[in-house]
Amino acid sequence: MGRYIFGIDLGGTSVKMGLLENEDLLETWQIPTNKDNQGANVLSEIAESVYKKALERKIAPADIIGIGIAVPGPVADGNVVTNCVNIGWKNMAVSDKLAACLADLFDAVPTDFRVKTANDANAAALGEMWKGGGRGVDSIVMLTLGTGIGGGVVIGGKILAGSHGAGGEIGHMLCVAQKDISGACGCGRKGCLEQVASATGFVNYAKLFLKRTDQASVLRDKLEKEGEIFAHDVTRAAEAGDAVAMEIFDNICHYLGKAMANIAVVSDPECFVIGGGVSAAGEFLRRNIERHYKESAFFGVAETKIELAELGNDAGVYGAACMVKDLD
Amino acid sequence: MGRYIFGIDLGGTSVKMGLLENEDLLETWQIPTNKDNQGANVLSEIAESVYKKALERKIAPADIIGIGIAVPGPVADGNVVTNCVNIGWKNMAVSDKLAACLADLFDAVPTDFRVKTANDANAAALGEMWKGGGRGVDSIVMLTLGTGIGGGVVIGGKILAGSHGAGGEIGHMLCVAQKDISGACGCGRKGCLEQVASATGFVNYAKLFLKRTDQASVLRDKLEKEGEIFAHDVTRAAEAGDAVAMEIFDNICHYLGKAMANIAVVSDPECFVIGGGVSAAGEFLRRNIERHYKESAFFGVAETKIELAELGNDAGVYGAACMVKDLD
Repeated sequence: MGRYIFGIDLGGTSVKMGLLENEDLLETWQIPTNKDNQGANVLSEIAESVYKKALERKIAPADIIGIGIAVPGPVADGNVVTNCVNIGWKNMAVSDKLAACLADLFDAVPTDFRVKTANDANAAALGEMWKGGGRGVDSIVMLTLGTGIGGGVVIGGKILAGSHGAGGEIGHMLCVAQKDISGACGCGRKGCLEQVASATGFVNYAKLFLKRTDQASVLRDKLEKEGEIFAHDVTRAAEAGDAVAMEIFDNICHYLGKAMANIAVVSDPECFVIGGGVSAAGEFLRRNIERHYKESAFFGVAETKIELAELGNDAGVYGAACMVKDLD
Repeated sequence: MGRYIFGIDLGGTSVKMGLLENEDLLETWQIPTNKDNQGANVLSEIAESVYKKALERKIAPADIIGIGIAVPGPVADGNVVTNCVNIGWKNMAVSDKLAACLADLFDAVPTDFRVKTANDANAAALGEMWKGGGRGVDSIVMLTLGTGIGGGVVIGGKILAGSHGAGGEIGHMLCVAQKDISGACGCGRKGCLEQVASATGFVNYAKLFLKRTDQASVLRDKLEKEGEIFAHDVTRAAEAGDAVAMEIFDNICHYLGKAMANIAVVSDPECFVIGGGVSAAGEFLRRNIERHYKESAFFGVAETKIELAELGNDAGVYGAACMVKDLD
């Protein structure tokens, strides 16, 4: 058994690559995502970058445990991505193809060389459980509050990918009242959690709320002066005590807490982890979500821990590596 | 390895016992649940009944794979029941104690003799997956629409018990509008699925609905004449075309379908199975839940199968046995 693992997080613009030795992250680097020809060369270019790094560091193939890769799409059986819109893939057997590319480059690939693929939000959840906000437990649910809401469910140390790759698609829980949304979610439905609680959702809900009241608010001032507001404007104004922003923030945290209470009676994790750009609001966000969670939660799960993510953009790299480490 | 398994379903009134040979159920029998002294003798009496059955059928201890037991309370680590109100147990190490009772009775218990405990709703889900409505898949979510709503989540052939034993407590998803309930759920909160979709919930919601309208209905007639209605009155009247009953039934199926859509974006099962007394309404119920599920579901999970339970009261016995069969 080797001691090196490559963890790879494939994004629509760049590929984040990481090298771990004995489970510690030695370094990360990036290569651009080549989307030409429906991403036909993405995996060979990743393999090449792995190969170069191994040469540079004089790592023998036998010393590599394997490679984990996180991709932005639903993954079946740790291998096939059915539809990866940002890259251009359809039914791509990622693990198989990446393994083949590596076999072409390395002279002698060990027979037990491991390659495994997961959805990026699921990989981030696994990473946070391994080395981040969920350290020390073996079942977590992670919510990544970014442009949309990514979610990941890990049970017994394993990603719950689901039978259609929809495990942990928590942004698409229907739980928002029609009065609090304008228009439809990206998925075509109305009332998804991400319509109010993603970074975009924060802004949309704040704008809707501002129309309903004529109360003064720094958010209204900023919107009128600069033509736009951002999620961090809402969280900062709420933390600073702006009454309108506080109500907006509180209502959003209510939706998050209630959605998490409903997740808890399905998969009952030891810990929730909140990540993504919105989580830059830190303890102020965590504490308010926790308050609403406790108000909504079934008595048996009211004490479930709620933590902030700690790994930032490295979560996917860690999670991808963790899959290979723990491969049965 | 033996070929016999005992599957046991412990209820508040009686214990249902089953003997399986080569995974087929040979017979079932019942013993009363002895609740004296906080159920102190329940497990020794179960062990005795197992012992007698083995003697009667001349089954040698070495031919028994093990014993699985389903209990009406949350279970940790396949062993400890933290709180079993119907029996009187608190923090009872069921598997350990049952194994000890069996060791006292049998001359020679094999060293690999297996004893495992699960929550009864979870065991029923596992049973339906093994031999019932969920045959052929390895991840299901079961909803048991009885006096309350029991739920069970099985992923990759294993029960998801959850970190507080609340995995699959689907009856306590908060998803019902305040206008559709009167009073609180047994758990103390307001808006739980079981407040409208359990057998009791059907009746409560129907009574509330009847108060809101003066439209004629066989349900109103029955309620006035006989002083009470039951869940099957609602389903039968809806199937027979009574307009008020149809609207009541449709609204309840909407809540069920939407709750299942929200479950699907957490654990994404291959199949939902609907059981419990209310499921006697059969295909009429299944079809209507399915219609609402498809309307509410995220596109990736809209085709998830919805089946009726097939094992009736034997589901717990089968599930308890299945745990032992599949024990790692």
